[in-house]
Amino acid sequence: MEVTRPLDLLNASKDKRVMIELKNGKQFIGKLVAFDIHINCVLNEAEEMENGETKRKLGKLFLRGDTIILISPSE
Amino acid sequence: MEVTRPLDLLNASKDKRVMIELKNGKQFIGKLVAFDIHINCVLNEAEEMENGETKRKLGKLFLRGDTIILISPSE
Amino acid sequence: MEVTRPLDLLNASKDKRVMIELKNGKQFIGKLVAFDIHINCVLNEAEEMENGETKRKLGKLFLRGDTIILISPSE
Amino acid sequence: MEVTRPLDLLNASKDKRVMIELKNGKQFIGKLVAFDIHINCVLNEAEEMENGETKRKLGKLFLRGDTIILISPSE
Amino acid sequence: MEVTRPLDLLNASKDKRVMIELKNGKQFIGKLVAFDIHINCVLNEAEEMENGETKRKLGKLFLRGDTIILISPSE
Amino acid sequence: MEVTRPLDLLNASKDKRVMIELKNGKQFIGKLVAFDIHINCVLNEAEEMENGETKRKLGKLFLRGDTIILISPSE
Amino acid sequence: MEVTRPLDLLNASKDKRVMIELKNGKQFIGKLVAFDIHINCVLNEAEEMENGETKRKLGKLFLRGDTIILISPSE
Repeated sequence: MEVTRPLDLLNASKDKRVMIELKNGKQFIGKLVAFDIHINCVLNEAEEMENGETKRKLGKLFLRGDTIILISPSE
Repeated sequence: MEVTRPLDLLNASKDKRVMIELKNGKQFIGKLVAFDIHINCVLNEAEEMENGETKRKLGKLFLRGDTIILISPSE
Repeated sequence: MEVTRPLDLLNASKDKRVMIELKNGKQFIGKLVAFDIHINCVLNEAEEMENGETKRKLGKLFLRGDTIILISPSE
Repeated sequence: MEVTRPLDLLNASKDKRVMIELKNGKQFIGKLVAFDIHINCVLNEAEEMENGETKRKLGKLFLRGDTIILISPSE
Repeated sequence: MEVTRPLDLLNASKDKRVMIELKNGKQFIGKLVAFDIHINCVLNEAEEMENGETKRKLGKLFLRGDTIILISPSE
Repeated sequence: MEVTRPLDLLNASKDKRVMIELKNGKQFIGKLVAFDIHINCVLNEAEEMENGETKRKLGKLFLRGDTIILISPSE
Repeated sequence: MEVTRPLDLLNASKDKRVMIELKNGKQFIGKLVAFDIHINCVLNEAEEMENGETKRKLGKLFLRGDTIILISPSE
């Protein structure tokens, strides 16, 4: 994977599992299905995590970009 | 449902029940009637939830997009 | 009333009583006289509410859109 | 006075006394001399109020729009 | 001085002493040398004030507009 | 290295180790792979640091620009 | 030096030592190498200061403009 612009990493992470952290400290994992230039994201099989454990299962999930701090691919 | 852009998930959720969480931690459920690119949303049969219980019934509800953290379809 | 865009609900609420909540937790009721795309709103016969009781009567009131979380028509 | 857009109320309040509340909870009264689309405002004979009493007299006062929550004409 | 737009007050205050308050509660006085539409300001002979006393002397000072709450001419 | 615009420093830091601090106080180190005008950044071999020690290893990491306070090249 | 626009002060401060304060209260000193209209800044020989003492030496430093409150030239 060649990453020359930040969104290239998100493109390369499509259909793969990612971890997303929000400004309020919440952490979600799931399969990245879609994102846009505002970093709005959609996850599949989304779960909210707390201290490494599943707090709740959310299935499909839309996250508003301006609440996101970081996105990290899982593998 | 094919989701290639984040708003596709919201489109696919129209007239279906969704759960919406706000930056202030409040949680609403209701039928998603409309949304726009700012993620302003209108719910029908909206209820504010707290710890899984209905806190108040609001009927029709306009939510300003910039206060929204996440939207999750209920089914 | 047909609501296909979020602002349609506000249009349908013109000259009717609405409840508006702000980011600082304050709640106002009044007759919605005007709004714009920033969700700046003007209420007539506006009252600030606290725990379901009138805290102060404000008459005409301009609310800046970026402080608004939600708007709910009263009937 | 006919108010069809939110700024119409501010126009109708020119040269009249208004009360302005800021995001930090501060409250000002004074004569509204000027405003713009950002809701930047200038008051004359401005006073900061606290619990209904004058806290300090400021004379002419420029208030940056993005700190304003609400504006209410005094009469 | 005729003030028809908010920035007219700032124009009329050029080369005069003003008091500026920031979102973090800090207060500065000094001679207003320049400002722009973002309300970025430059003061000369700037002093940070606390409870009416000089806390530190800063000389020339650039203040970023989006941190400013209010500007009041000193005369 | 000639730095005439702020982003020149980030360009000169590409493929080098940088330290990034966020508004929430978190600190990350890693190799800067990509950035854009919003200061969205991608790090490789990213680690979250706390008191000079590695708190967690994140591998590839996307950081949303509006959460970033500062970026400092490591050498 | 003639300052007619706020950024003129920053231009006149290029290659000179400045003190920069951030919204989170942190204070940095260093030689101003570059800035842009967002007030993104690059310092050389940057040091974070606390109570007038050097807390850490950072060398080259990129500061994101929207976290900056004030910039003051040192001489």
